[in-house]
Amino acid sequence: MNLAAAKAALAHLDLDENPASVKSKSRDFFWYSPVLKARLDHVVADFVVSPRSEAEVIEVLRTCYAHDVPVTVRGAGTGNYGQAMPLAGGCVMHLKHLDKIREIAPGRVVAEPGIVIRELDAQTRAASGQELRMMPSTAATATLGGFIAGGSGGVGSVRWGALRDLGNIIRLRVVTMEAEPQIHEFTGEELHRVSHAYGTNGIITEIEMPLAPAYDWVSGFVTLPDFEMAAAFGAALAAEDGILLKLVTVCEAPIAEAYFQRFKGHVTPEDTTAIVMVAPHAMPAFETFLARWPAAKLIFRSDAPDWARDPGPAYEYGWNHTTLRALKVEPRITYLQVRYHGPDYLETIARVRAHFGSELMQHLEVMRENGQIIYAGLTLVRFTTEERLEDIVRIHEDMGAMIFNPHRYTLEEGGRQSADARQLAFKREADPKGLLNPGKMIAWDVPDWSYETIYAYAGMRAAQ
Amino acid sequence: MNLAAAKAALAHLDLDENPASVKSKSRDFFWYSPVLKARLDHVVADFVVSPRSEAEVIEVLRTCYAHDVPVTVRGAGTGNYGQAMPLAGGCVMHLKHLDKIREIAPGRVVAEPGIVIRELDAQTRAASGQELRMMPSTAATATLGGFIAGGSGGVGSVRWGALRDLGNIIRLRVVTMEAEPQIHEFTGEELHRVSHAYGTNGIITEIEMPLAPAYDWVSGFVTLPDFEMAAAFGAALAAEDGILLKLVTVCEAPIAEAYFQRFKGHVTPEDTTAIVMVAPHAMPAFETFLARWPAAKLIFRSDAPDWARDPGPAYEYGWNHTTLRALKVEPRITYLQVRYHGPDYLETIARVRAHFGSELMQHLEVMRENGQIIYAGLTLVRFTTEERLEDIVRIHEDMGAMIFNPHRYTLEEGGRQSADARQLAFKREADPKGLLNPGKMIAWDVPDWSYETIYAYAGMRAAQ
Repeated sequence: MNLAAAKAALAHLDLDENPASVKSKSRDFFWYSPVLKARLDHVVADFVVSPRSEAEVIEVLRTCYAHDVPVTVRGAGTGNYGQAMPLAGGCVMHLKHLDKIREIAPGRVVAEPGIVIRELDAQTRAASGQELRMMPSTAATATLGGFIAGGSGGVGSVRWGALRDLGNIIRLRVVTMEAEPQIHEFTGEELHRVSHAYGTNGIITEIEMPLAPAYDWVSGFVTLPDFEMAAAFGAALAAEDGILLKLVTVCEAPIAEAYFQRFKGHVTPEDTTAIVMVAPHAMPAFETFLARWPAAKLIFRSDAPDWARDPGPAYEYGWNHTTLRALKVEPRITYLQVRYHGPDYLETIARVRAHFGSELMQHLEVMRENGQIIYAGLTLVRFTTEERLEDIVRIHEDMGAMIFNPHRYTLEEGGRQSADARQLAFKREADPKGLLNPGKMIAWDVPDWSYETIYAYAGMRAAQ
Repeated sequence: MNLAAAKAALAHLDLDENPASVKSKSRDFFWYSPVLKARLDHVVADFVVSPRSEAEVIEVLRTCYAHDVPVTVRGAGTGNYGQAMPLAGGCVMHLKHLDKIREIAPGRVVAEPGIVIRELDAQTRAASGQELRMMPSTAATATLGGFIAGGSGGVGSVRWGALRDLGNIIRLRVVTMEAEPQIHEFTGEELHRVSHAYGTNGIITEIEMPLAPAYDWVSGFVTLPDFEMAAAFGAALAAEDGILLKLVTVCEAPIAEAYFQRFKGHVTPEDTTAIVMVAPHAMPAFETFLARWPAAKLIFRSDAPDWARDPGPAYEYGWNHTTLRALKVEPRITYLQVRYHGPDYLETIARVRAHFGSELMQHLEVMRENGQIIYAGLTLVRFTTEERLEDIVRIHEDMGAMIFNPHRYTLEEGGRQSADARQLAFKREADPKGLLNPGKMIAWDVPDWSYETIYAYAGMRAAQ
């Protein structure tokens, strides 16, 4: 790695070498995980470059390739798996300047990766009454490119499924890291080469996404006396095909009372809560549905607010904002990402909950998967030791719940614990020196890895 | 019944007594059924009145109430269950003049019942880029009020479920037939009093419906070599939550070759066809899906048409347009309405098909029901005798397929073979003399009816 030469060659770009800001731009939200915090807290890049165009992206990649400097791409750094942590140092490429919308049409938008999702939605809404089908709960700061490279779904998945499902990304334009970087346009099956690949095999420079109508979604908060009833309520609500929803979150008691500051006085420690986003024209049907569940109480609706302090949008209580709010109050809290599907998914959830008691707090998000209603669990965990956390993961798996382990920084360990042949094959082509986000793809480093212990990237730069 | 007095009192309205046009306006599409044709072909009203406002609707109802004249409401008369046939004669109230749109807003429209659905969609599209969530295949002529009073779903149900599912109708304004007709506004659970009630317990004068985005839907025709593969293909396509669809129709061979004139030369008698409507921005994902089914061939797409003669929109090959095209070619053809759901619905379809062989031709429409993908069957039947048709219905039911019998003119027999307590209770209130569309609600006429034989309304006017 010839850092000095690379920096000199890139000096005419927006280059940041200030130690404090380089350190801050070398971090994402890995610290949700005590396991990752112990391993990644010291990680820092050598410099940050923020290209202003695709041409400058290509220049950065060509230059860093020539000087063997690793390049880790980032957006807002809201990922929780250490997706944007530059394990081997080198260059962090920040895409904040690539924030333009190129085209808005019925049902789709073409944009640059660095645009903040809330800003994108504001622009598409103003221009066409449309917005993205789905977004992370961090939409206020997260970028579109970061969501595609590091995310998997979120607010909107109750209707549209996961980000990688057919049709939820239309086209990606990708630059490779070679002596002479190449540009590829990917659609269809090819999208899987680079979506959710953490920037390990190319840099996304343009994105075409489907759009859905942008309604003035009503945030609704519902209390229920019982968790299993609430889980059944959420699933039944989402199964109403005629009630247009954007979010259905279920939080076991006492999550709302204990961690949602603005809920104080409106909920008790015994209240399970369901948090929903409903299209305004579906509110009458939602009220009709609610009346069929006499134990469910609608305690807040944003179209007729009656709390002294505005609680803000519903989606900032769902997905990983639930975790964020909990760990701000109770720092030992971390979480799991669980998938409950199959015909008995509600029973699986009940069994898991009964097994663990208060060590876990159940937090569920409705998703669609293969045309079915399923639950993602973003279970809150009262962390004690890494060993116990491993036990908790194993017990979930033994009980039939699938885990996407958020205490791992590699694609494989955070995913399905197996190599993705398409991502690996494209990395061979697009990143022959293995300089893109090093240490995140085990299949590249150690092809015969057994997954028996947590992977420790050998090239990780030591704490200084 | 004092016809003369009623006609005299209504003479200042748009009143039609011309025998030829009264006869024509006394008919709907009951003749799809040889059973109904044998029983209803002679049915004719005494006069037709076409009110120009809700006030005139009220005047008609008040006047006919005073003179004991039955009133059967109609739109375009595209129903196949004899919904609009005036069994006891009297007055047909034609709502063609009530065709105004009152309000278009994000996600909803308020309109009068007599508006033709295609015209409504054209206006909402022009004003706001929106259209109805679902429509019958007869949208070119069918009215909105007729769809709600006599229909159950259709093109769009692949995404939104059935018309009576929560959220698919927002509000109905209804006038009763009393000495002094009353106006009711129904939402929520109350909608079920009058939706799909054939106008037996009130006249709908205003309708608020949810809207969805109006895309330039691409009509696609796909051939597959095998029916069971095609049924699996259609269900798998609809289960792709990220591929926005409006129609997925499956027609067993040789339906397309034998009955779809414009398909000649493009299909063989061995081709099963899948007929789809796909949002333009979902076409790349649809093509990706198609490529996963190597035996499926896309033989036509309306965004790149290459047939010498335009086949017209896909939806005019689906739902009951499939039947219409078939019986135009082969007049002995009639149909069944089947519902295949539950975990083994594809196996049920295969079993039914194997049992009947060429006596039936399978025609399937994907729907959503309770958040699940299911199939409606609009099975083509080579009619022989009424007795055999009864056998066919019974065999379906014995094999686990639910039948909505389109060879019956009563609400109960065409539905779930049981009285609808809500509709009956409201009829007691809204139509105390039993003058609204008489003979269509068995529960009103014969509360203890056993459903062992086909119901024959005692008040049916004899052929003249």
